[in-house]
Formats: sequence, C-alpha cells, structure tokens
Amino acid sequence: MTANTTLLSLSEIESLAAACLMANGCDEINAGAVSRVIAAAERDGCHAHGLMRLPGYVAALRSGKVNGHARPTVHSQSAAVLRVDGDRGYAPLALELGTQSLGGAAKQAGIAALALVNTHHFAALWYEIEMMAAQGLVAMACTSYKPAVLPAGGTRALYGTNPLAFGWPRSGGQPVVFDQASAVMARGEVMLAASEGRTLPEGVGVDPQGQPTTDPQAVLKGALLAFGGYKGSSIAMMVELLAGALIGECFSFEAASRDNEDGGPPRGGEFMLAIDPAHLGDGDGWQSHAELLFGEICAQQGTRLPGERRYRHRAVALQEGVAVSTGLLEKVRALAG
Amino acid sequence: MTANTTLLSLSEIESLAAACLMANGCDEINAGAVSRVIAAAERDGCHAHGLMRLPGYVAALRSGKVNGHARPTVHSQSAAVLRVDGDRGYAPLALELGTQSLGGAAKQAGIAALALVNTHHFAALWYEIEMMAAQGLVAMACTSYKPAVLPAGGTRALYGTNPLAFGWPRSGGQPVVFDQASAVMARGEVMLAASEGRTLPEGVGVDPQGQPTTDPQAVLKGALLAFGGYKGSSIAMMVELLAGALIGECFSFEAASRDNEDGGPPRGGEFMLAIDPAHLGDGDGWQSHAELLFGEICAQQGTRLPGERRYRHRAVALQEGVAVSTGLLEKVRALAG
Repeated sequence: MTANTTLLSLSEIESLAAACLMANGCDEINAGAVSRVIAAAERDGCHAHGLMRLPGYVAALRSGKVNGHARPTVHSQSAAVLRVDGDRGYAPLALELGTQSLGGAAKQAGIAALALVNTHHFAALWYEIEMMAAQGLVAMACTSYKPAVLPAGGTRALYGTNPLAFGWPRSGGQPVVFDQASAVMARGEVMLAASEGRTLPEGVGVDPQGQPTTDPQAVLKGALLAFGGYKGSSIAMMVELLAGALIGECFSFEAASRDNEDGGPPRGGEFMLAIDPAHLGDGDGWQSHAELLFGEICAQQGTRLPGERRYRHRAVALQEGVAVSTGLLEKVRALAG
Repeated sequence: MTANTTLLSLSEIESLAAACLMANGCDEINAGAVSRVIAAAERDGCHAHGLMRLPGYVAALRSGKVNGHARPTVHSQSAAVLRVDGDRGYAPLALELGTQSLGGAAKQAGIAALALVNTHHFAALWYEIEMMAAQGLVAMACTSYKPAVLPAGGTRALYGTNPLAFGWPRSGGQPVVFDQASAVMARGEVMLAASEGRTLPEGVGVDPQGQPTTDPQAVLKGALLAFGGYKGSSIAMMVELLAGALIGECFSFEAASRDNEDGGPPRGGEFMLAIDPAHLGDGDGWQSHAELLFGEICAQQGTRLPGERRYRHRAVALQEGVAVSTGLLEKVRALAG
C-alpha cells in the first residue's frame, strides 16, 4: 500500500460497489451480482475489471441504456441448448442463473451450450468459467465488444477485443483457466504507453489510415492487430460468429453503431459451452490424466499454468485485502452519493 | 505444369492413392476413405497433406502399427455425445461414419460432441469440418500430434502442432473454414528454409538448449514457438486437453513415447463439436446475419475469408487437374507395386 492507496477488505469492496450501483438505478439483486464480479476482479488483481468500471456501469444505468431491474429468464431450446434473455440488464445476474442451468444440462446431455442475449457485458469471462469449473465441468466462453481489432491484412477495426476463455476443473485445486483477448495488446496497455510517452513495439497496431505505427496515440485512434497475425484474426472472427450470428445477437460493429456512447458497455451476447468429461472419456481418469500434462508444463523452467497469477493475487487479497487507488475510491464514493 | 511435374486428374490421384494403400495392407473401404482425403488435399493445393503422405501411410501399415482393415464403431454416450472407436485404423473412415452420427445428434440436441479415439490421424481437419458444414452445421475440431511446440516461456517441445479448426456453413457458397496449427510456422516451411539455406525470422523457434535461434537446422532439432506468444500456447494446451484427457486419448508427449517411429502418424484422438444454429438463435436469420460480417471483412482491401485460397485451388483443379511432382509420382507408383 502506498500513500495514494487505501486498503479495503473484499467485503468492503463488494458493499461499496453494490451501494454505488443501487444509488444509480440497480435493484439489490442486480447490484449484488455485479458487485460480486467487481470484488472478484479486485481480489484477483484484475483491476481493469474492478472498481475502475463503476463509472461506466453507472453511466449506462443513468442513461437508461441498461435495465437495473432486469429479470433474466432461462429458456430450454433443446436437450443441450439454453437461451438466457438478460432483459437488457448487466450480464452477471443472467450468468448466475444461466450457469446453474447450463451445468445441469451438461451433466445430463454430456455437452451443453448457452446463448446469452439482450445483455450488457462489462466484465472478464474467467468468472463464469470458474462457475462452471466449480461444477466439475470443462467450459469455454466468448463475447464480442466494440470494434478495436483489424481483420488480418485489413485497414480498419472490425472485430472487438473478443476474448476467448477456457477452463479445466482440477480436483485438488484451482481450475486451469485462460481468458485472452484477440488483440495482441490490451487497449489499456496502449493507453498507459501513451500517458507515459513510450513508443509501442512493432506489430501492435495501425494508425487511422491503416498504416503500421509504434505511436500509441495513433494506435488509439486507429486499431490494434490480432495476436499471432492471421491466426488470432481467425479466432476473433470465430468469436464474432459464435457470440453474434449463432446466438442471434449483434456483431461488434453493430453493437457500436447502436450504442448511445454513454461510456457503459454496448448491448451484446455471450456464447458458452460446458462439457462433462464423465460422458466423453473412457471412465473417470480424465482428471488424473490431465495432471500429467500440467506436471510436464510446470517441469519446464519459465512456464506457468494459465490462471496462476490470478490465484496468487487471490491468496494475498483474501488475507490482506486490496490496495485501492484513493482517487478511484473518492470517485466511486461520490457516485454512491 | 513444369518439366518435373505430371498432370493428373483428381480421380487419377484418388485411384492411385487407393491402389497404393491396398497394395500395402488396407482393405478397399479403408483405402477409399484415406484416398478421398488425399485427393481433396491435392485438389485444394494442400500438397503437404496429399500424395506426399503416402510413404508415411504405407510405412505404418507395413509395420503393423495401423490396422488397414479397421471397422470403426460409433457409440452413443448420451443425448449429445458420441464416441467413435477407430479400431486402430486411419482416421478418415472413422470420421466418415462419425460425422454422419454427429450431425444427427447436433440436429436433435442443438449441440453435440464427438470423441474419436484409437485412431491414427495424418490429415488436415478442414476436411471433416466441411463434412459438418455440408450438413448445415457450425463445427469445431482439434487434434494433437507429437511434441513440436514449446509451452510459453519453456525450453522443450511439449505440445503437438495441435491444429484448431472451425467452420461456418453458407447457404450461397463454400463454408468459411479455418484450420490452423498452434505453431507460429509449419515445420514444413522450416524444412524448406533449411534446404534452401535461408535463416528464419526472429520468433519462430529455439535450439535444443531452448535458446532462440534463426537457424532452421537448429529449430528442427529444437522446437517451434506457439503463434502469438502465450496466447497461442494456451490454445495448444486446450487442444491437448480436449483431444487427450477429455476424450480418454493420449497427449502429444505420450503419443511420441509410445510410437514405433515408423514414419507414420502415432496413435491419437480428435475432438469435434457440431452446433445447429437453428436451436441457438432466434429464428433462422443466422445465415444472412453472418453474411453481413463476411461482407464487412471483404470490404477491406487486403483481407480474405479463411478457406478462400483452398477454394481457388479447388476450382482450378476440378477443371484442369493437379500437377504432381514426377519424382513423388514415381515413388508412389513404386509403393503401389
């Protein structure tokens, strides 16, 4: 903790976030779900998805774009497909309901998919992946956002940052979870470079004319490249299709054109799938088998399992709380009234 | 066609491949399935998966590792999960059977998964993705192989080249399909650079001590990097888990240690999933909706849809046949006896 930070417990963060949301148009059940996600992000060191997002959450409640009294509904479409209508609310409440049903369907059918629509997603995906892993299920999720990433070879942002997340449950510990954007670098890191006057490495982005540049200001006005060239671009396209046309929700470019630009998240969808390995494999050796792979990964110096960094932050935060920027804290308290 | 090539029709390629396989221990039904895959690869300009593979296919038949008389069996595990036992044969016959059942299950349940086990996969994945797209289904597939790719930050090859493939059916034309390895560069391209005495770009691979190098000979003895740094490495790990522990088959490192090194493919598995968009979305507008995205991608100069290059080759090959290296042709004819 430095002079510019204030130490808060996780329950203090959650209560503050809930109070802020309830002072701005959320009812208790919606505020509760969102504030659990915010507290989890702070707990895991993912500050970009934590309290920092509250001004955006509040803006979209105040503008009326997002329904703070949403009552999401879960519809069973077939043996292995659920559709959750978010009632124009924030995603967390819809996901708390949807992931329970998804888990049940996956345990019955072996694999199941969830189409989350009519919602506003402003959080990371590892949170709902962990909810599936807690049910002993392998899971995958993706969502699009506003255009930020070039299609390979192109000149203009078309794809969202489009995270793809995956999780594998472990009987003896935390699940192995990755949650990675399709952009080669997070927009937040580009903003940081701009504010510190640093140039970017080659291959991060292009200027508004579509020309490669290492100037972070130009990239912020232009677009980011996908990770790994055309391969990351293919992943970004797949995410657009799964979280868009497949589930009957909008693409990133449609989300942006319909958005009221209030600073909160645009309307969008999320595609999730859950798999019960007990149905796929030959017996129940899948968990111990996977440990052999994890052991091989960790046996190489310099490697780590996806998710490890978050779990290290989590262990500390559960004991010691989280140091929150005092400036941010004042801003949030002001929003809470 | 140059002096060193011979022009063959696609049916000539298919017949030659079938004759070669049948002269070396395949029965007609297994040889037919493999030779269709080989002819499709030549047709689409994917020569690395075409006739070039026949010496490897033959070697594993001759060594007895692969069962040329395999009778794959399809088992329904639950409403949405199928398990196909390949009976120690090559994958194509098992996939011809499995993808039909997978399509039926996906149309019933909305989404379905296929666990292909006890098989030897030596071909590309776009072939089976196209079989699902032909049924009007969205599909994903992945398979592992022998270790070739470093886990991010590590020093030794652990992951296979581990392709991930995805396809989206289009009513008015060929499906959009990508099929991409987790390695930043194909091993074949590294071999080409070595044979031509060229150095590699930075960031392709490491030497046997795990040190970065641009020497293709050193990379061939060492390992390739995953595409896009740790993000591609996460994808490669996911592929190991899905095509390994999830379905009860071996990881790349296990496949290598059990293989008899006869030059043919090791034993392995494949994970596939198929989704019927009619169950997920809100009505049947999913196809026309996707066209809006494809239109936006193609509206940018310099872009292309995944799969386009193959379809261009296909159109030419269907009219004109394929120019096959005369040296390769002689080799294959010799193998056919």
